[in-house]
Amino acid sequence: MDIDCPLPVNSEETIRLGHGSGGELSQNLFRNSIFPHIKNPHLEHLHDSARFAIDGARLAFTTDSFVISPLFFPGGDIGELAVYGTVNDLAMGGARPMYLSCSLILEEGLPLKTLERVMASMGRAAEQAGVQLVTGDTKVVERGKGDGLYINTAGVGLLEHDRDIGPGSIRDGDRILLSGDIGRHGMAVMASREGLAFDTPLQSDCAPLHAPVLDLLRAGINVHCLRDLTRGGLATALVELARARGRLLMLEESSVAVDPSVEGACELLGLDPFYVANEGRFVVFVAPEEEQSALNILHRHTVSADSRVIGEVAPSDPAAVVMRNILGCERLLDLLPGEQLPRIC
Amino acid sequence: MDIDCPLPVNSEETIRLGHGSGGELSQNLFRNSIFPHIKNPHLEHLHDSARFAIDGARLAFTTDSFVISPLFFPGGDIGELAVYGTVNDLAMGGARPMYLSCSLILEEGLPLKTLERVMASMGRAAEQAGVQLVTGDTKVVERGKGDGLYINTAGVGLLEHDRDIGPGSIRDGDRILLSGDIGRHGMAVMASREGLAFDTPLQSDCAPLHAPVLDLLRAGINVHCLRDLTRGGLATALVELARARGRLLMLEESSVAVDPSVEGACELLGLDPFYVANEGRFVVFVAPEEEQSALNILHRHTVSADSRVIGEVAPSDPAAVVMRNILGCERLLDLLPGEQLPRIC
Repeated sequence: MDIDCPLPVNSEETIRLGHGSGGELSQNLFRNSIFPHIKNPHLEHLHDSARFAIDGARLAFTTDSFVISPLFFPGGDIGELAVYGTVNDLAMGGARPMYLSCSLILEEGLPLKTLERVMASMGRAAEQAGVQLVTGDTKVVERGKGDGLYINTAGVGLLEHDRDIGPGSIRDGDRILLSGDIGRHGMAVMASREGLAFDTPLQSDCAPLHAPVLDLLRAGINVHCLRDLTRGGLATALVELARARGRLLMLEESSVAVDPSVEGACELLGLDPFYVANEGRFVVFVAPEEEQSALNILHRHTVSADSRVIGEVAPSDPAAVVMRNILGCERLLDLLPGEQLPRIC
Repeated sequence: MDIDCPLPVNSEETIRLGHGSGGELSQNLFRNSIFPHIKNPHLEHLHDSARFAIDGARLAFTTDSFVISPLFFPGGDIGELAVYGTVNDLAMGGARPMYLSCSLILEEGLPLKTLERVMASMGRAAEQAGVQLVTGDTKVVERGKGDGLYINTAGVGLLEHDRDIGPGSIRDGDRILLSGDIGRHGMAVMASREGLAFDTPLQSDCAPLHAPVLDLLRAGINVHCLRDLTRGGLATALVELARARGRLLMLEESSVAVDPSVEGACELLGLDPFYVANEGRFVVFVAPEEEQSALNILHRHTVSADSRVIGEVAPSDPAAVVMRNILGCERLLDLLPGEQLPRIC
C-alpha cells in the first residue's frame, strides 16, 4: 500500500513519527511488524484491553506508555494521564479498574521536584479513580536518551458481568452516543506547546471514565461497544470500529459538539477536531430502545453530562464512517495516513 | 544521609544515573520521592511483584521497563530480556506466569528490521516461558528523545498455593541456595559494549526461572523466600533481604561460583562480580531440613543445575550480609551507593 505521508519516505524502512499516530501507519506497523511475531487469539480482538479468566475470575488487562510533551499542560499532566489512560482502557472493556502498575523511565538531569510533582499527581488520580498503584519499576537513561520522563502503566480490572463488549457486538440500527464535546485534550496540549494564548484558556478533558460506564452496566443496559477517543480522536476510533465490524456508521455533524475555543485553535493550526485526541470522552453503542435510559444514566455524571446521540449503525458494504452536515452533504471519514499531533499522550 | 557517589553531586537535586542502579540511590529515590505520594500496603512489601485476590483468584502482578544498551548482546536481546524479566519477577513471587503486556517506545529512525527481530525474539521467549503477550501499546518519540527501543512488560500470574513467600518468612537457620554461577549477564553486556574479546566468549545467562520454582512449590517444599539477582547482583539482593528481615546473612565466598571468563572481565574493568547483574539466577531460602530435597529438585532443571548452598541466616543485630573467605576473613557486603553498570537491563 502506498501511503501519502507528510514526512519524507525513506527507501530503507525505519520508524517515523507517523507510526505512533494511531492512524494508518500505526495499524500497518502492528499488522506487519508486531502481530505476526507474537500472534495469539487475544491480540486479534484489537481491543483496548485483553480479557481472560484466571481461576474463575474474569479479568481485563491493559497497558499504555505515556510520552506526552510537555509533561504539564492546562488541565492535567503526564501523571494524571498515565493513571486515567489505563483506568479508561479497562473501563472501555467493561471492567472495574482495580490495580495499576507504574514504571518510570527517567532521563538523567530531570529535577527531582518534577518527578515528585508527577508522582503526587499520580497518587491523587489513583485515589480519584479508586485504584491502587501496587507495583512499579524505575529506570534511568543518560542525558539525551529520553525526554525528562516517560511513564508506563498497566492495569488489571474485574469484569462483573458476562457481556461481550466490543466491535463484534455492534448491531445494525445501534445508536452511537458520544459523552461530550471533542478535541479539548489535543488542542490544550498543542496550544501550550506552541505558546498560543486564547481568551478562554483551553483545558484538557483528561478524566476517569469508569463511573458512568459501570453505572450503565449495573443498571442492566445492554452495552454493545465502548471506545475512548484518544490518539486520532473521534474519527479514528469510529473508523476502526466500522472496519472491525464491517458496518457503515452514519454521523450527524451537527450533533458533535466542538467548543468554540477548540474550533478556533484547530483553524489556526490547520487541524480537524474530529481527529484531535481526547482523554475524557468515549462513545457507547446501544440498541435504539435503550438510547434514552443510557442517556439518562450518562447525564448523571459530570464527565458525561453532555452526552448525545451522534449517529447510528447502518448495514453496508464497504465498512466506513460517513458524516452528514446540516445541508445534507456527506463526507467520508477515513484514517489519517500519518501523524497529526505527535506525542499527545 | 550523605552518599559517597562516584558521580559529581549537584546542589540542585536532579536524577543521576545512579538512581537507576538498584543500589542506595535507587532506594532513596523510591523512599523519598515516589513512595510517599502513592503509598499503599502493597508497595510496602517492596517485593518483585504485588499479590492480591480478585474474585477469589489469588494473583501476582508486576512490571519492568527495559532500556538495555546495546539491544542485542551475546546470549540474548532486549526482547527476550523483557519477557523473561517479567516472567521471573512473577516466579519470584511464587506465581505461575500467565499473561504479559508489551508496550514499546520507539525512536524515530529505528530500522523496522530491528523492531521485527526483537518482536520475533519476544514471541519465541513467550512460547518458551508458556505465557501469552495479550495486550500492548506503541509510542514513537522524535530522533534524539529515545535510544532505538525501550520495552515495558507487565505480567499477571496465578498463585497456586497459599504460602507467603517473601522476606517476612525468612527464619533463623534458613539455608540460602544459589541457582548457579554469577555475573554472566552484566559482563556479557559490558564486554560487548566495550568491544572486549575473550578466548571463551561471555554469554548472558538470560533465562526463564519459573520451571524450577514451580517444581519446588508443587513438591511441597516450604519455600520461605525467593529473589532473582538482577540489577546490583547477588550482593544487592541479599542486602535488601537482610534489611527487610532484620537478620544477618552469612555467606561462604568459596561456595559462590564465578566463571573464570567473568572473573577475568571483572578484573579488567575493575568490577566486583557480586554486584554484577544476572538475568537467570536466583536465591531460595529454605529450612535446613529441606535443603537437600530442594537441591535435588533444582538440579533437575538446566537453569538451576549448578545450585548450591552458599550460606545461612543467623539471628543478629544489625541486619547485614557478611561473606567469609577460605582463610576465614570476613567482609561486609553493603549496597553500592550509585551505579556500577548503567543500562544493564
